[in-house]
Amino acid sequence: MDKTLDVIIIGAGSAGLAALREVRKRSESFLLINDGAYGTTCARVGCMPSKALIEAANAFHRRHSFDAFGIRGAAALSVDVPAVLRRVRALRDDFVAGTLAATDELGERSEAGRARLLDAQTVAVGERRYHARRIVIASGSQPVIPDAWRAFGDRIVTTDTLFERETLPRRMAVVGLGAIGIEIAQALSRLGVEVTGFGANPRLAGLSDEAVDLALRELLHKEFAFHTSASAELSPTADGIEVRSGAVRVVADQVIAAIGRRPNVAGLGLETLGVELDARGMPPVNPNTLQIADLPVFLAGDANGRAALLHEAADEGHIAGINAMATELRCFRRRTPLAIVFADPNVAVVGQRFAELDAAQLVIGQASFKRQGRARTAQHNKGLMRLYADRNSGRLLGGEMCVPAGEHMAHVLALAIERELSVQELLRLPFYHPVLEEGMRGALRDLSAQLPAGSDSDLASCGAYKVEALD
Amino acid sequence: MDKTLDVIIIGAGSAGLAALREVRKRSESFLLINDGAYGTTCARVGCMPSKALIEAANAFHRRHSFDAFGIRGAAALSVDVPAVLRRVRALRDDFVAGTLAATDELGERSEAGRARLLDAQTVAVGERRYHARRIVIASGSQPVIPDAWRAFGDRIVTTDTLFERETLPRRMAVVGLGAIGIEIAQALSRLGVEVTGFGANPRLAGLSDEAVDLALRELLHKEFAFHTSASAELSPTADGIEVRSGAVRVVADQVIAAIGRRPNVAGLGLETLGVELDARGMPPVNPNTLQIADLPVFLAGDANGRAALLHEAADEGHIAGINAMATELRCFRRRTPLAIVFADPNVAVVGQRFAELDAAQLVIGQASFKRQGRARTAQHNKGLMRLYADRNSGRLLGGEMCVPAGEHMAHVLALAIERELSVQELLRLPFYHPVLEEGMRGALRDLSAQLPAGSDSDLASCGAYKVEALD
Repeated sequence: MDKTLDVIIIGAGSAGLAALREVRKRSESFLLINDGAYGTTCARVGCMPSKALIEAANAFHRRHSFDAFGIRGAAALSVDVPAVLRRVRALRDDFVAGTLAATDELGERSEAGRARLLDAQTVAVGERRYHARRIVIASGSQPVIPDAWRAFGDRIVTTDTLFERETLPRRMAVVGLGAIGIEIAQALSRLGVEVTGFGANPRLAGLSDEAVDLALRELLHKEFAFHTSASAELSPTADGIEVRSGAVRVVADQVIAAIGRRPNVAGLGLETLGVELDARGMPPVNPNTLQIADLPVFLAGDANGRAALLHEAADEGHIAGINAMATELRCFRRRTPLAIVFADPNVAVVGQRFAELDAAQLVIGQASFKRQGRARTAQHNKGLMRLYADRNSGRLLGGEMCVPAGEHMAHVLALAIERELSVQELLRLPFYHPVLEEGMRGALRDLSAQLPAGSDSDLASCGAYKVEALD
Repeated sequence: MDKTLDVIIIGAGSAGLAALREVRKRSESFLLINDGAYGTTCARVGCMPSKALIEAANAFHRRHSFDAFGIRGAAALSVDVPAVLRRVRALRDDFVAGTLAATDELGERSEAGRARLLDAQTVAVGERRYHARRIVIASGSQPVIPDAWRAFGDRIVTTDTLFERETLPRRMAVVGLGAIGIEIAQALSRLGVEVTGFGANPRLAGLSDEAVDLALRELLHKEFAFHTSASAELSPTADGIEVRSGAVRVVADQVIAAIGRRPNVAGLGLETLGVELDARGMPPVNPNTLQIADLPVFLAGDANGRAALLHEAADEGHIAGINAMATELRCFRRRTPLAIVFADPNVAVVGQRFAELDAAQLVIGQASFKRQGRARTAQHNKGLMRLYADRNSGRLLGGEMCVPAGEHMAHVLALAIERELSVQELLRLPFYHPVLEEGMRGALRDLSAQLPAGSDSDLASCGAYKVEALD
C-alpha cells in the first residue's frame, strides 16, 4: 500500500477506541488494527463482569445481617452459581456489544490481525504494509501466568477465563492479592467457594499504609484464609493443585492467577524504533503527551505499563488521539491518581500514596468506621480511613482506606486534592446527617487538630457584623 | 436568683448542645433548660431511628432482585416487624445515650422545665427567675398534627410515636409526602404494610424540578399507592380511619401525620421581646449570626423554622454559642444548601433549587440511570439526575436527583458548588470505572455541550510541548 495514512491505531480496546474517537473528529484517513477478540478488556474480562459477579456475591453475603435486622428465613437462601455466571455473561455480552458498535462500521479502515512495527511510520500485518504519519499503540495487557503453570492447563484460571466457566469448583486458590486478587477472592468466597489466598506483597489490594492494610486483613480473615508471608509454588496432586507458601500447603481444584498484568508489547517491534528499551522491554513514554521519545509513535493505555485502569486508559487514548493529529503536540495535565478496589468494604487509594510521602512533612488523620452512626444503622460499620495532609500548608495530599462507600468518598477526596484544598477548606463541605461521609469528616477533624490553628469554626466568618445589618 | 449568668440555653437538642459546647469553651456561667425528653430529635425520633428502619426495609426489599442475581429461596424470607422495631429502639437508645452524656454531668447548671422569656435577659421556669447577659433559644420543633385529628387518638402516628410501636398494622395512610413522608411510606411499604400516601404539594420529597419529580413518581408508583391532587380529610370508620382526597377514599388502620414540623415557640414569650413577629409568630433572625433583631437573644436550630436539618441545626448552635459569648458578634457564612431524602433511590437537592433559578440564565444537564453500567451490575439502575449551570460562566449552581448513591454524589456536587467550580473544572475529577459517579459525569457532559466551547478535553493542557522536554 503506497498511500500514507494520517494515523494507524494498534488495538481496539478502551485506549484505542478513545484515540479513534479523537482521530475521527479530525480525519478519515486512519486504520485500526486489532489482534484477538474485539470488545475492551474492561467490558469483556475486566471491570464489568467482575462487578456483576461481585454484586451477586455481596447480595448473597448480605443474608448474614438479616437476622439482626429482623428478617427471617435467610437459612433457606442458596446461590445457583451457574445462574450467577450466566447472568455475568449476559451482562458482559451487552457491555461488549456497546464497545463493538464503535468498530463495526469501519469497513476497510479496520483490520483484524497482529501488527508489527517495521519503523516509526510503518506497520506490517502479515504480508501487508501500512504507512502513516503517526502511530498510536494501544495493544492492552494480559494476565501474567508463570510458564511453569501452563502445565496445569485449565486448572489455572485468569480473569480471561473465569467468567467463561459454567460453574465453580469447591476449592480455589487465588495467587496474588492485589486489586484483582482481592476482588475475586472475596467474591468467590461469598459465593460459597472454599478460597485460600496467597500474596507475596506485604500489603493487600494495592494499599501502602500498614494501618489500613491491617484493618483490611482483620476483616478479610473473617471471610477466607490467606497467607502473605512467602511466594506460592504449585505442584500437581491426584485431584488438583497443591499450593505451597512457606509452611502452608493447600490443595485446590483450580488456581486463579492474579499476580499482575503484562503489557502486550512482545512481537510489536518496539526494538525497531531505535530508542532504548528498559529492563521490561518498554520504551520511554512521556505521560503528558504519550509520545515515545521524539518519535511519531504514541503508547497509550495498559500497553505502556503505567496503570492498568480504565479511566487512565481512556485519558491516554484521548491524549494520544489528539496528539496523533496535532501539528504541535499538546502536553496534558493528568488527573489526580485514584485507585479503587471493589471489595466490601471498598478499598481506595487517592492522591499521593502513603508510601510516597515524606513522613516528616506529614500529619495523618484517621477514622474508624466501627462505631460510625449511619454505618451501624445499615450493619456496615467496619473499616478504617487514613488521610494525609501537609504539615505546613494544611493541604490534603492523599488518603488510603477500607471503608463502606469508600468508592464514593474517594471521589470527594479526589476533587479536594485536584483543587489543592486545605483540610479546613474541605471541612466547609456540608456533611449531611446521617451519612458515611461524617466518618470521613472525623478523619479530617483529626487532621485539623494537628494542623496550625486556623479558625475555631468550619464556617468562615463572612465579615464584620453591624447591628443594623440584619438581612 | 440575683446572679447574672453569662448564657442561658433553652433546649438540650442538637442546636442547644452545639451552643453549649461553644459556651463551655469560654465560660462556666451558664444554665441549660430543657422541656420534655432529653436526647435530641435526631437521635430520639428523627434521623437515626428512621435510618435504622429504612435500612431493614431496604435489606428485605432487596430480595426482589435475588432471582435475577442467581440467588434462590427468597420466597422463604419474611420480616418480623416487632423484631425490626425492637432493633430500631435498641439502636435508638444507644444513639440517645450518646447525646445524654453531654448533659448528665451539668448538675445545677441544668434544669428540666418549660422556659418562658420575661424579657430579653430574663427567663422563668415555673416560679424561678434567671438572668443572663445572653440567651440562646434552641427549643426544637414538633410534628404538626391538625387539631381535628386529635380525636383519632393513637390511630394518628407521628415520628414521635412510630418507633415506639410494638408492631405495625396492616393498612397505614401517610399524609404528607415531603422528606419524612416519603422515607416512612416507602420503608413501611417495604416492610409489608399496605401504604397509601397523600400529598397536597405538587412535588414529592422536597423536589422542585418537575422532571425529577416525575421520575421519582414513576418509581414509587411501583411500590405503593399515593395521591397528590388534593389535601386529605379524615373521618372515623368502624375499624379505622377513612382518608378522603378528591375522589379517592381509602380506609387505614392508622394514619401517619407527616405534614410538617412546627417550631416550638408557643408559650416561649417571644412577644415580650418587643420585636415584630411574622404571621407564623416568628421574630426576625439573622441567619449569619442567629441574633434576633438587635437583642441579646439568639434563635437556633429547628426553633427558628429555617430548615429542620441536623447539620444546619448543629451549625446554628455553634454560631449562636460563639456569638452568645462574643464581645463583638461574628457573622458566619453558611454552608452550601444540601437536603437528602433517604429513599431508594436517594433523593437529593443540592445548591440552588431549580425553582429558585432564572431559567433564562440557565443550562440544564441531565442523566438517566436506567442504563448506567455499574448500576446495572447491581440491579440499581433507575432514576434521573438534573444539574443546573450558569449559561455564561459555566458555573455549577445546583442539582436535583433521584438516583442510586445520590446521597454520596450530592456531597461531590456540594463541594463543587461550595468552591464555585465550573462544569469544566468538575469534569477534571477522576471518575473511576465502573462507578455511579460516571452517571453524574453524563449530566455534567450534557451541561458542557450546551456551554460556550471550552477546551476539547477534560484534561487541561499543561503547557507548550517541546520535543526535548521529555520527563
